[in-house]
Parts: sequence; structure tokens; C-alpha cells
Amino acid sequence: MAQEHTVKSYDEELNQLRSMISRMGGLAEAQLTGAIEALTERNAEKAQRIIAADRSLDILEQEIESQAIQMIALRSPMADDLREIVAAIKISSTLERIADYAKNVAKRSIVLNQSEHVKPAVLIPQMVELTKVMLKDALDAYIDRDAQKTIMVWESDKGVDELYNSLFRELLTYMMENPRLITPCTHILFIAKNIERIGDHVTNLAEIVYYQVKGETLDMNRPKSDDTSFAVVPPPANT
Amino acid sequence: MAQEHTVKSYDEELNQLRSMISRMGGLAEAQLTGAIEALTERNAEKAQRIIAADRSLDILEQEIESQAIQMIALRSPMADDLREIVAAIKISSTLERIADYAKNVAKRSIVLNQSEHVKPAVLIPQMVELTKVMLKDALDAYIDRDAQKTIMVWESDKGVDELYNSLFRELLTYMMENPRLITPCTHILFIAKNIERIGDHVTNLAEIVYYQVKGETLDMNRPKSDDTSFAVVPPPANT
Repeated sequence: MAQEHTVKSYDEELNQLRSMISRMGGLAEAQLTGAIEALTERNAEKAQRIIAADRSLDILEQEIESQAIQMIALRSPMADDLREIVAAIKISSTLERIADYAKNVAKRSIVLNQSEHVKPAVLIPQMVELTKVMLKDALDAYIDRDAQKTIMVWESDKGVDELYNSLFRELLTYMMENPRLITPCTHILFIAKNIERIGDHVTNLAEIVYYQVKGETLDMNRPKSDDTSFAVVPPPANT
Repeated sequence: MAQEHTVKSYDEELNQLRSMISRMGGLAEAQLTGAIEALTERNAEKAQRIIAADRSLDILEQEIESQAIQMIALRSPMADDLREIVAAIKISSTLERIADYAKNVAKRSIVLNQSEHVKPAVLIPQMVELTKVMLKDALDAYIDRDAQKTIMVWESDKGVDELYNSLFRELLTYMMENPRLITPCTHILFIAKNIERIGDHVTNLAEIVYYQVKGETLDMNRPKSDDTSFAVVPPPANT
């Protein structure tokens, strides 16, 4: 039988840190999936479960941070090791924020259940699918230390932003055509913005993993295509 | 004349870290002030300056983080000192996010300049005033290590949330009454949400400073009064 160790080896600590990150990544993925299911199934009970489960990611973030700080203070790691441990702190903080946005989606899905069905909501699952693939790839890149894959993730965010831009304009047009849809469309707008922000944070994740693996920053211009801050949507001709 | 020291003392390093935080706090305050001035003065040039200046906060955050990690690795600080250095990392990350929201306000102010004037926009400067007082008090609490003041800040966030709730309902009503206002009102809605999020982050700041000073968490239920995720605004009778 394996012996009990009261003092873990440095490698054991590092492996433990990695598996905590992977677990947290899996939980964040599940939160995003659950939130969008709650939305499309109009399932308030599932939304409540997602909201409640967010706490476990907050706790995991704290645990990862504590362990990382302790390792830095007690082991004085250098170069690659220090970079990996600092990356763990940043990754856990980013995953916590991703889960936070998923929680917000779940919250808003509850009020949407009570409103009229709005057609453009079909673009939302598309945005989520793309975001989920990005998140999965970023987590795979972390496990495999695959810098090439982080670049792929980084470039995919453009697609999420483009879907968001379409949705933004479409929703505003719906609101103009039918004032009864203003409340549900506003909530869908905020849901879409939450998912667009998740895409941004997965892009951050890709940058953190790239830096961890390569020791240099992903030195290109960030693909930033959410231009809705500057969008003016003209009212339809009949208003 | 003072002699050159190639190796700084630990206290010098700590003081340097503190003054970097204070400087970053001042810059974040200035960004928020500038963003709201750009909005109320309909001054696109000022908005562009705010957007450009955000970069300096990103750089400062990186510098603070590098210095803090280096201090943890090389000095292996314990207890109070470790808590202060970890707090510096978190504070700089929070200030960076606050400045990011200010930048978003500046971005949206540019498109609002091109739209019709919307009446409820007067509530926005009120929200900003309250948020700025909170930010100033949180930074004072950091400098003075004043736990009492952090609790005060923490409790003030309720006021920001209440203003946001009013604004949310008011804006939706305006949109229902006049479809021509849907585009500007949507941008104001996102601006208001950005400021509401700044309030949340200043509340985080208060929690970080409290923990740094007291060594225990601000163990109350967080005052969370943005209930617009659950808001259903009925259309006016004439639609």
C-alpha cells in the first residue's frame, strides 16, 4: 500500500495544482452548458441549480490561489515553474469569471421563461456552441501545453463577436417593430453580451496558456470585432 | 547626496508597491471622471483620450503583479506581509477592471453623441458620483488601513444598484413609448450596466482591503440589489 506523506513533493504539488485547474475548467464548461439548456428548455429549476453551483467555482478559485501562493512563498520557484504557478492563479480567476457570466445567463433565463418567445434567440445557442468549443480547446491546450492550439482559440473569438454583432442589430430591429418585445429582447441582449464576454475571457485564457508554454506574449493585435459600442440601428420606416 | 542602492530593502520594496497601487487608483478615478465628462459634454475627442489612456493602467497592473510575485518568491514573506503583497495583486487587477469599464463608457459615449438626447441620462451622472465617492473611500481605506471605512464602502453599493434598477425600468419605458429612442436607450442601458459593475468591483476592493487589514473576510451577506435580471417591464397601455 502507498505510504502516507505528510509533506508532499514539489512535483506532487504541481500535479495537484494542474488537476485542480482541469477540474475547475470542467465545472466552468458544465455551467455554461447548463445555463444555455436552462434558457432553451425554459427550465427555471435547472437555472436555479446553475446559480447555486457557482459557489463551488468560487471556492475552487480560492483553493488554487492559496496553494499557488504557498508554493511561491515556500519553494521560491524560478523561470518555467514560477510562470506555471502564476498562470494557475490567472487561469482560475478567468474560469471563475466565465462561470460568473454563465450564472448571469441562468438568472436572465428565468425571467425570459415568463415572456413571449423571441425569434432571434436561435443565434444565442450558436454563439454558445462556438464559445464552448473555444473553452474546450483552451483547456486541452493547457493540458497538452499546445501553443498552436491557443492561437486557434484566440482567432476563433472573431466568430463569436460577429454573431453578437448580428444579434445586436437584429434585436434592436425587433424592438422597434414590436414594443411588446422590448423587455424580453433587452434580456436576450444582456445574455448575448454575457456570452460575448465569455468569448473574451476564453481568449484571455488562450493568451495565459500561450505565455505559460512559450514564455513570451501572444504578440499580435487582438481580434476585436464587437463593434456594437459604435452601432446605430435606424428605426424601420414605419415608426 | 543620497547614495545609489542597487539592492532595495524590503521596506523600500513594500513602499514602492503601495505607491504604485495609489497611483493606479488615482488613474482609475481619473478615467471614470473623464469618461462621464465625455458622455455629458458629448465630447468625442475626450472619449478617445480616455480610450487611449487605458493602456497605461494595463501596464501598471503588469508591473505591480511582477513586483509582487518577485517579492513573494525572493523574500518568502509570512502572515501580514504575504497578505499585503497578495492584496496588491488583487487590488491592481480590480482597478484594471474598473478602468476597463470606464473605457467602455467612453466608447459608447461616442455613438450617443450622434443620437437624440435622452432624458433619463441624468441618472447616469448620479450613479457615477456615488461610485466615485465609493472608489475614493476604498482607496483612502487602503492607504489608512481603515477597516471601518471599507464596511461603509461595501454598504454604499446598494445605492448604486438602486439607481441602476430605476434607470433600467425608466429606459425600457422610454423605448416602448418612442421606438426612435431604442438605439440610444440601449447604449445608455449598457453604460448604466458598466457603472453598476464598477460599483461591484469597488465593493470587491473594499473586501480585499478589509481582509488585508483584518486577516479575516468581511463575513456578511453581500448587499446585492441589482434585481433587473429578474425585471419584467410591462409595455405602456397605448402599445
